[in-house]
Amino acid sequence: MAAPAIPNTSILRSCLYPRLIATRDRSLELVKPLTAEDMVVQPTDDASPTKWHLAHVTWFFETFVLAKFLPGYRIFDETFNFCFNSYYESQGARQPRGMRGLLTRPSVDRVMSYRQHVDEALGRLVDLLPGDQPEVNRLIEIGINHEEQHQELLLMDLLALFAANPLRPAYMPGKPSLISDAAAALLRWSEYKSGLIEFGHDGRGYAWDNEYPRHQAFVRPFKLANRLVTNGEWISFIQDGGYRDANHWLADGWNTVQREAWRCPLYWEGYGADWKLMTLEGLRPLEMAAPVCNVSYFEAEAFARWSGHRLPTEFEWELAARGLPPHAVTFTPELKPAALQDNEQLLQMYGSVWQWTQSAYAPYPGYTPPPGAIGEYNGKFMVSQQVLRGASCITPPGHSRPSYRNFFYPQQRWQFAGLRLAADI
Amino acid sequence: MAAPAIPNTSILRSCLYPRLIATRDRSLELVKPLTAEDMVVQPTDDASPTKWHLAHVTWFFETFVLAKFLPGYRIFDETFNFCFNSYYESQGARQPRGMRGLLTRPSVDRVMSYRQHVDEALGRLVDLLPGDQPEVNRLIEIGINHEEQHQELLLMDLLALFAANPLRPAYMPGKPSLISDAAAALLRWSEYKSGLIEFGHDGRGYAWDNEYPRHQAFVRPFKLANRLVTNGEWISFIQDGGYRDANHWLADGWNTVQREAWRCPLYWEGYGADWKLMTLEGLRPLEMAAPVCNVSYFEAEAFARWSGHRLPTEFEWELAARGLPPHAVTFTPELKPAALQDNEQLLQMYGSVWQWTQSAYAPYPGYTPPPGAIGEYNGKFMVSQQVLRGASCITPPGHSRPSYRNFFYPQQRWQFAGLRLAADI
Amino acid sequence: MAAPAIPNTSILRSCLYPRLIATRDRSLELVKPLTAEDMVVQPTDDASPTKWHLAHVTWFFETFVLAKFLPGYRIFDETFNFCFNSYYESQGARQPRGMRGLLTRPSVDRVMSYRQHVDEALGRLVDLLPGDQPEVNRLIEIGINHEEQHQELLLMDLLALFAANPLRPAYMPGKPSLISDAAAALLRWSEYKSGLIEFGHDGRGYAWDNEYPRHQAFVRPFKLANRLVTNGEWISFIQDGGYRDANHWLADGWNTVQREAWRCPLYWEGYGADWKLMTLEGLRPLEMAAPVCNVSYFEAEAFARWSGHRLPTEFEWELAARGLPPHAVTFTPELKPAALQDNEQLLQMYGSVWQWTQSAYAPYPGYTPPPGAIGEYNGKFMVSQQVLRGASCITPPGHSRPSYRNFFYPQQRWQFAGLRLAADI
Amino acid sequence: MAAPAIPNTSILRSCLYPRLIATRDRSLELVKPLTAEDMVVQPTDDASPTKWHLAHVTWFFETFVLAKFLPGYRIFDETFNFCFNSYYESQGARQPRGMRGLLTRPSVDRVMSYRQHVDEALGRLVDLLPGDQPEVNRLIEIGINHEEQHQELLLMDLLALFAANPLRPAYMPGKPSLISDAAAALLRWSEYKSGLIEFGHDGRGYAWDNEYPRHQAFVRPFKLANRLVTNGEWISFIQDGGYRDANHWLADGWNTVQREAWRCPLYWEGYGADWKLMTLEGLRPLEMAAPVCNVSYFEAEAFARWSGHRLPTEFEWELAARGLPPHAVTFTPELKPAALQDNEQLLQMYGSVWQWTQSAYAPYPGYTPPPGAIGEYNGKFMVSQQVLRGASCITPPGHSRPSYRNFFYPQQRWQFAGLRLAADI
Repeated sequence: MAAPAIPNTSILRSCLYPRLIATRDRSLELVKPLTAEDMVVQPTDDASPTKWHLAHVTWFFETFVLAKFLPGYRIFDETFNFCFNSYYESQGARQPRGMRGLLTRPSVDRVMSYRQHVDEALGRLVDLLPGDQPEVNRLIEIGINHEEQHQELLLMDLLALFAANPLRPAYMPGKPSLISDAAAALLRWSEYKSGLIEFGHDGRGYAWDNEYPRHQAFVRPFKLANRLVTNGEWISFIQDGGYRDANHWLADGWNTVQREAWRCPLYWEGYGADWKLMTLEGLRPLEMAAPVCNVSYFEAEAFARWSGHRLPTEFEWELAARGLPPHAVTFTPELKPAALQDNEQLLQMYGSVWQWTQSAYAPYPGYTPPPGAIGEYNGKFMVSQQVLRGASCITPPGHSRPSYRNFFYPQQRWQFAGLRLAADI
Repeated sequence: MAAPAIPNTSILRSCLYPRLIATRDRSLELVKPLTAEDMVVQPTDDASPTKWHLAHVTWFFETFVLAKFLPGYRIFDETFNFCFNSYYESQGARQPRGMRGLLTRPSVDRVMSYRQHVDEALGRLVDLLPGDQPEVNRLIEIGINHEEQHQELLLMDLLALFAANPLRPAYMPGKPSLISDAAAALLRWSEYKSGLIEFGHDGRGYAWDNEYPRHQAFVRPFKLANRLVTNGEWISFIQDGGYRDANHWLADGWNTVQREAWRCPLYWEGYGADWKLMTLEGLRPLEMAAPVCNVSYFEAEAFARWSGHRLPTEFEWELAARGLPPHAVTFTPELKPAALQDNEQLLQMYGSVWQWTQSAYAPYPGYTPPPGAIGEYNGKFMVSQQVLRGASCITPPGHSRPSYRNFFYPQQRWQFAGLRLAADI
Repeated sequence: MAAPAIPNTSILRSCLYPRLIATRDRSLELVKPLTAEDMVVQPTDDASPTKWHLAHVTWFFETFVLAKFLPGYRIFDETFNFCFNSYYESQGARQPRGMRGLLTRPSVDRVMSYRQHVDEALGRLVDLLPGDQPEVNRLIEIGINHEEQHQELLLMDLLALFAANPLRPAYMPGKPSLISDAAAALLRWSEYKSGLIEFGHDGRGYAWDNEYPRHQAFVRPFKLANRLVTNGEWISFIQDGGYRDANHWLADGWNTVQREAWRCPLYWEGYGADWKLMTLEGLRPLEMAAPVCNVSYFEAEAFARWSGHRLPTEFEWELAARGLPPHAVTFTPELKPAALQDNEQLLQMYGSVWQWTQSAYAPYPGYTPPPGAIGEYNGKFMVSQQVLRGASCITPPGHSRPSYRNFFYPQQRWQFAGLRLAADI
Repeated sequence: MAAPAIPNTSILRSCLYPRLIATRDRSLELVKPLTAEDMVVQPTDDASPTKWHLAHVTWFFETFVLAKFLPGYRIFDETFNFCFNSYYESQGARQPRGMRGLLTRPSVDRVMSYRQHVDEALGRLVDLLPGDQPEVNRLIEIGINHEEQHQELLLMDLLALFAANPLRPAYMPGKPSLISDAAAALLRWSEYKSGLIEFGHDGRGYAWDNEYPRHQAFVRPFKLANRLVTNGEWISFIQDGGYRDANHWLADGWNTVQREAWRCPLYWEGYGADWKLMTLEGLRPLEMAAPVCNVSYFEAEAFARWSGHRLPTEFEWELAARGLPPHAVTFTPELKPAALQDNEQLLQMYGSVWQWTQSAYAPYPGYTPPPGAIGEYNGKFMVSQQVLRGASCITPPGHSRPSYRNFFYPQQRWQFAGLRLAADI
């Protein structure tokens, strides 16, 4: 008689590994529309080549999981550590960030073989492990989330590349927008009371180190806009001379406006005539009711000041987000922020554009970086940047939660970032 | 019978005006050791010429007080608005910041006449005003505090100038230090409890707009070092490879260390041998027990991490400072931070070096800039900078209070800045 | 009875067109070892992507020949004029030079179709033209020579790309060098007499506009080295402190040495140990007897001064080259300069490395740019550059003649350039 | 009976020493209108402070004459070698060029004492030497000419300083111009025949090393304009779109025009309205008939091309100048180039503005730098610059001769440079 089946009850096998496979597959799905040429070029110092993203997230699994936990694992190629380490000083020297685009070799094909090699080895590791080992589980979960973050970066960086191409290629064929004539939802305000409130992640489910520790902070009464600022409203700002009046701007912002000759958000074209917007679907007419996107903190802050309001703090945003029903965010292939179509209480909290907050990116009280090389991440960037909350239309699922903290420098604007207004009561 | 004398009871006459005169005189006192040549040159883009400081603070009184409130006031020279406006966009075009040092004309003599012209007019204004006018009082008090701030800047900038001079001139003749052999006070820790506490200025006495509004913030239990980090301790950091190990540093900090080839604090000389320190008293042997000075935020943060501690938040510092007995800080001509000489509970909170905090410079909840051109100040700098607390040995009296917020960019280090350690309990 | 065959006696058909086809084919031959990824990336601002070279030379034929002389010619793609114009201001706006590497679209495949489209049209043009038309012949001949120049640029730029790749890929598999132990030929000197001599091209065969007009110049007695300076001799220069002693250098050169931290020629690796050289065959041991390559004018001039000699003028070089027997230079796939193997009077005049001269690149007396857009070339670069004479191991055949003038800025060194010594008698 | 007077027949005493005294005095004369503040500031990296010029020329006499030839000479201040060495690598480390303006100490007064100390020592040297010593005489003559060159630099640099000052100060009070309405002389051409001609200095009287050796060069027939290009003609160039049409420009020139946003010569103000010119006499109306000044080589070359002519070579200029009667050029205090007032054959060859030639600055055939530290001068600058001939209205007497070679980079334009047209016959 056959032995009774032993149920595969480990979290790794039943839960993490399927997610791992799905995540790894999704990366390949994302690059299907691209040629090898598209995947090798680096558009700016900030942005990385597609191929580099594909290899780097694979290197992460190889370096932090396989090399440590899979007995007899063979490093795919010893030179890859130099090529695809991002900034882990503890992992040794690496290709300078601004020169990632010079790596025409290893080829895309070889990077695909690398992915396969590592995927197979991850499968072997799952088979070999008798049950859950917390450290392995933790690292695989980090690796999944890490790869998902790079899926968003990959699309951001790709748009930067295609926007610098005179042909203005489309990553995906555009479908006629159904909503370009829709008016934005009426601007309404939700009000919130004062209190000493707990913020940060509660430990249920995955979170990054920078969402910890959960801690108390005092919030004063405030109100928050039900929806994001729209392209149409941004045009009013432009027409009112917003980019020409120093009074709206932080001093550093005004210097940037002048030095970079900013006159509109990144990817807007056709100043003074019919506005066009460069998107992952190619060059499209600008939709008035869609949320403004690809603005810097300097611009968001100036707009808020000009409008008589302000940006929310990250805690105000988190407090407001917390009250929402579980949000069914799926990774629909919306490659540009959609205009508003429904009428909930608080709209567009996730899945449209990241929302600048007035909070500087800083460690929470009691924060300590995780041990080991992994700990280099997050903590070492906690200065001179601003927190964004929410999630954008190109953010993978599972990255939309009230406590999630994204961060960029105040002058950066190639990420999918917009704003939601707030005010004191 | 003679009318009874009406007592001069206005605050302006009895209190503000004498302070005004004293402040104006002190500026002249400060520049006595300088030649006209010393006063015209601009050492770096960040620092300004002495003459420019003397004229700019005078322009402030002329523009915001005399031109508005003294009937018939004659502008001393119409070209000075262009020459000596700092960054008030509302006051029109101005000499670019990096070109202030090209103003060999107007001469120092003419700037001195300008000061006299404005001082006399301020005297007439005081005579003319029947009693206190809140707006005038407010502006004069701002002007006094503004000039005092520039007195500190003037000395910082002068040290930058003299440090770049191969002769290493002394601003003031050095007196032999009595304390160079003294050991620093034993490092002890003061502990503080958790609580929801009010921060910011309470409205009694002068404060800058950025110290308002008073508001509640939640503080967790922490401890604070009784004294500042010393030069001797900094040498340990250097000897332990502090400037060569990326793990201690924020990513931006590490980039700066490499780009600028930092190997020690600014103004230290003689790497690897007998350390010397360039000070306002000239080039002096480095005192081991004196607080380290002229370090950037990046360096202070790296040191704290290396030492196993952290920098305090600005609220922790303020809470600790609040419990102190009224501090008798006088403007003694100590031109370099002195080593510790006594044994109080918390030492060197003021009068030694500004102390970096881990708090980004941001508006307090509910902050609104003051109306008018004056409002351009402070608010427009609230991004990408870090708060420093305390006061330095070159800070004028009256700027030492628990709620005072100084701020600089994390890479800047020509200001008199050091650090005090903190830790969670 | 059949009509008597009309002999195809036009120069175009009998001579130019076969050369055109051969040249176009050779470009395709050159890129065979490359992947599409290799062909899209731009290594530096100076260097261009392979794909760009392939398309630009094709655009040249389309724009200056087909669009003007082939009735009914259909422009392949209207966007290509923007993409692949190099610097012809008269042809309109274009992709900025430093952003040529962002053109992941049009793809390599599409550029190959472009080449085919243009090649076919050129064939039709040849068929259609009844006989020789001087203007067409001239433009086709220019186009051939232009494409040949880009064949050399393509290889130079490719080496720059591969040298920046941590894998140090080989463009072609290296064959073991047969000559690495060979001593360089003994240095001997050829002497030349003074005279008023004609220089410049004599009009027989093709020449660039900058080789005209033929004109007289006076030359004083001089002597010229029979061979090029070798790697072994360059090591003596390095070991003698050549890169550390300002006295050998022009002032601009010394500034460059310090700013760029030059310590050896470009592509040398392993300072202080076993020297390696990055070549189109990959990283190879440095051959002592091979001519030094990839040195700047600053370095060549400093070496000559250090050695007690000088660089020749471009006229001295031309005079010496003129006396040589017709040189059998074939386009052998020598991808790095070979060491000397034979024993002629003057060795290595062509086919090894370009040779810096002390002559600034300037128009010859009476020079006038050719009419039309073509005339933008050559004339507009006649300032701040130095003339190089000879031809390198990657120079196509037909570009080796006494009057040929190559030119680069004195700090550039990614071209295959070395030096030959001269001296006054 | 008294000994018969021994006549003072040495060249040093009878000729050089009086010239030395006159030159040294003239430097002091030149700075009389300046304050100490004017004298310490450095306007740009290229230009130096007045005080630095005064000290550097003195350091030259101290270092190369007194320290070597006056027994027992006491160095005035050992720190001055670091402060006032310009670029003599052999004389040791020095204040970086861009930081000369930070030298508020030593003061102007101390530099004046330095001058006096050195002048007295030079007097003692003259008394002590029994007769002429060729080496001493040579060095003193070089020192005189060197100081004279710095007198011109001093005025150029001063204008750069005052032009950056919003007050636009006048170095000297302007006298009403008598000639502003005068038409420029009719443009006429002098023709010259072909020939193999000797160029360079003939050894009679002083010359710089770069004027040697005298050598033959072949000149083709050419013609030269009798006068300089005027401001009025330059306005035609501007109005014809000269600064907006790439076709007129060298490629490097066009890049500079765009990067620097050039629209007119340096020091012209009031674009599109009444042109004003900043001069050493302050801001003045632009005189149409005066020669254009403060234009770069790029501009001069573009103008010449636009006008259908070209710039002369340095040999053409020298040949034309050689035929002129001895020119009575005196150092009249004309601080801006005057319009033409008389009617000679060739006008304005000296004493108005330096004239750009199309000749790159290169060594003459057989040139060898003089031995010793002095030899660092001239030779080390022979790359990437263009030769100017003639002399300007601020050039001291004795620097106006046919063989004199001045040189600047093609983008520089703070020197007093204009142009004279030439053409082939």
